[in-house]
Amino acid sequence: MSKKIPTRIYLSEDEIPKAWYNLRADMKNKPDPLLHPGTLQPITADDLAPVFCKGVIEQELDDTTRFIPIPDELYDFYRAYRPSPLVRAYYLEKELGTPAEIYYKFEGTNTSGSHKLNSAGPQAYYAKKDGLTSLTTETGAGQWGTAMSMACAFYGIELIVYMVKISSEQKPYRKALMEAYGANLIPSPSDTTESGRKILAADPNTGGSLGCAITEAIETAVKTDKCRYVLGSVLNHVLLHQSIIGLEAKAALDNFNIKPDIIIGCAGGGSNLGGLISPFMGEKLAGKLDARFIAIEPASCPSFTRGKYAYDFGDTGQTTPLIKMMTLGNGFMPSSNHAGGLRYHGMNAILSKLYQDGLIEAKSAVQTEVFDAALRFMKVEGILPAPESSHAIKAAIDEALECKKTGEKKVILFGLSGTGYFDMTAYSSYNNKTMNDQIPSDADLEKGFASIPKIPQNG
Amino acid sequence: MSKKIPTRIYLSEDEIPKAWYNLRADMKNKPDPLLHPGTLQPITADDLAPVFCKGVIEQELDDTTRFIPIPDELYDFYRAYRPSPLVRAYYLEKELGTPAEIYYKFEGTNTSGSHKLNSAGPQAYYAKKDGLTSLTTETGAGQWGTAMSMACAFYGIELIVYMVKISSEQKPYRKALMEAYGANLIPSPSDTTESGRKILAADPNTGGSLGCAITEAIETAVKTDKCRYVLGSVLNHVLLHQSIIGLEAKAALDNFNIKPDIIIGCAGGGSNLGGLISPFMGEKLAGKLDARFIAIEPASCPSFTRGKYAYDFGDTGQTTPLIKMMTLGNGFMPSSNHAGGLRYHGMNAILSKLYQDGLIEAKSAVQTEVFDAALRFMKVEGILPAPESSHAIKAAIDEALECKKTGEKKVILFGLSGTGYFDMTAYSSYNNKTMNDQIPSDADLEKGFASIPKIPQNG
Repeated sequence: MSKKIPTRIYLSEDEIPKAWYNLRADMKNKPDPLLHPGTLQPITADDLAPVFCKGVIEQELDDTTRFIPIPDELYDFYRAYRPSPLVRAYYLEKELGTPAEIYYKFEGTNTSGSHKLNSAGPQAYYAKKDGLTSLTTETGAGQWGTAMSMACAFYGIELIVYMVKISSEQKPYRKALMEAYGANLIPSPSDTTESGRKILAADPNTGGSLGCAITEAIETAVKTDKCRYVLGSVLNHVLLHQSIIGLEAKAALDNFNIKPDIIIGCAGGGSNLGGLISPFMGEKLAGKLDARFIAIEPASCPSFTRGKYAYDFGDTGQTTPLIKMMTLGNGFMPSSNHAGGLRYHGMNAILSKLYQDGLIEAKSAVQTEVFDAALRFMKVEGILPAPESSHAIKAAIDEALECKKTGEKKVILFGLSGTGYFDMTAYSSYNNKTMNDQIPSDADLEKGFASIPKIPQNG
Repeated sequence: MSKKIPTRIYLSEDEIPKAWYNLRADMKNKPDPLLHPGTLQPITADDLAPVFCKGVIEQELDDTTRFIPIPDELYDFYRAYRPSPLVRAYYLEKELGTPAEIYYKFEGTNTSGSHKLNSAGPQAYYAKKDGLTSLTTETGAGQWGTAMSMACAFYGIELIVYMVKISSEQKPYRKALMEAYGANLIPSPSDTTESGRKILAADPNTGGSLGCAITEAIETAVKTDKCRYVLGSVLNHVLLHQSIIGLEAKAALDNFNIKPDIIIGCAGGGSNLGGLISPFMGEKLAGKLDARFIAIEPASCPSFTRGKYAYDFGDTGQTTPLIKMMTLGNGFMPSSNHAGGLRYHGMNAILSKLYQDGLIEAKSAVQTEVFDAALRFMKVEGILPAPESSHAIKAAIDEALECKKTGEKKVILFGLSGTGYFDMTAYSSYNNKTMNDQIPSDADLEKGFASIPKIPQNG
């Protein structure tokens, strides 16, 4: 007899995963390696040492170890806000009148408001372990900066956050929250770096960009030996840390003998999508799970659905290693939209490879239809979703309504990666019907593609 | 052998209380009845019928039924966000180096961000049951308005919220959230009521006040038979609904055989404090629990610590029934401070009576020391507390540090009534050191006391 499924399924504290799951270990077709932009040879730990902490470099390059233990001191950090709930969307199912069973893994119960904390903790921990005293990073929408501020407060490490200038002006509350956690916020471009000064000299009134903030953060990090740089998405070690989302979701479903038929995540750089799907994809690769995987991205920044699979830089400043990924080109400028966390030109290499191999489907949505879905969800489920996460809600509702047509009782799992408390401007613009949907033209895309470096694109 | 206590203690869904606890039933010395302001006789159900829903009137007047069942349809509402976690503050204990055990009941995991939803749900439900189509209310800081917006969206009832004009201008995000839930926000004073028009005629540029918003909301509610008024604090039925906080907290502690020595709640109108302490006070009255109860209020609005025990109006417009309570006088104007939810001149009648009888202690704190405590808490516990709730943190830290001095291993329980996502202006002003502490002078208090009606104040 099957157990009654509660609205919120909580694991016990003892069920917080003891190890991260490294999906690459189970991929027969591995993603292509990061390349050094100068030599075009696979990048080495030594190449990365001036920029990143030792612990994460090891994880970034490891594509064979299946489970990587979570250190005890880090378990202490996770225990402060995990396990996160897996919610059975009874209310949404009723509202839609669907025979489908809908579940969502909710990562917004911590104060940073998103899943970003899952990687911020480990990155601050490894910095502490390396004896570092400070870290630098950049933030646009602010989720990552907030998560790092919390993690650095926890481990007693100084944090410098280069915040895109226009964002720091538009989001004073995000700034206040990071500052309350003790972070040092610097609007970017700034006069604290050579790259910042150059940009300011050319255009003193610029609002800045994420690419510029990354460049400033890296420049500051490599200046001293007691400081390193941290990044909240795109890279493989971030996906590894985020696998805790999928591991907990799977453990909770396993406790009730439930197998998902469809797994959905919103996609920007890939941290939330990759973290959620990793253990399920591992089962699929092992022939133990017959499920569909759906990535959903904004139509304004369609790296999966309209991008190219190519080696490209991770930043617009062209300073990072080359990543083989789905990309719109590092020079692509997404139109402004309210899902700032999804406005990235590229996509994590593992996810890009899975997409190439037909293991992940991808869809895009315009923002008004994403907010339609968000409102429908929040009125019955009582959670204010982030615009990013609302993409997954949109895709889940579409699949559930398809089930309504066909009468199929499928099990849908989606990732609700965060809350929208700092995105009320977006909700206001939706309420006031001033929200626009912007889709790049083919000509816009061609301009972006032109920035992809002209190197041998084999593989 | 005692079980290991997890960081977050969750009850199962089946353990959500099936009935509210009515503390008055167990009080030998009952609070004095509400009086009709015209006749000065105890108020009757008929007197209240034009203003409130039937279900809540019955509860307001019932001081004998110990447990009042929670209807099934309402259990459906509670199940959407309850049980809320009881957190063992391991991290705070470590930070303080105290031998005390600290627990907090966290009511901020729902989207309204506070405990207010616990009474908003029942009040919307009873309105639906009475066949009403709309409700009116007022909001200042916005927590109650948000909670009612969510509850009315859930039960399909129209909601008109009179929002203090200056608040609606200063808190556009609160407004956006309520509107996203479908509420009709009207800045008060407005031209939709006679009382609003009068005030506007006298002063077209007024920023409004809570007193005025209440008067407008009641005026609109009594205009039609399909509409009633709802209030989020002060009244006894609100305390009854909020007893779910204390019942869950007690059930969670009971599961681990833990008895609290000190129970702390922040105090504005009393809804959170009363809800948290009710079942524990019931045990104390029955001689089964030897605990101290501490109310903590802002020094800028000290109704317990510097108020009078007297019959007074609940609103500055002097339209409500008379309540025997600790009061600063309905004409008292608290200086502006960042804990908007605690800026109320009076105090729930039950709590006032318990205070008179020496069963509750009271303290006050100035806002900079409250924010000192909030920052200390949020850096280690990872939760952004509301300014209101931070008063309880302040008192809990003080008690824990006292234990550090004496070496006593006391068990401290406090209510963390909500989150501070919409209070970042307050955190900014704290970060920037522009926050002021304002304490009313004796002359300020005398002015307030002068507004207490001159009626026989027996009892």
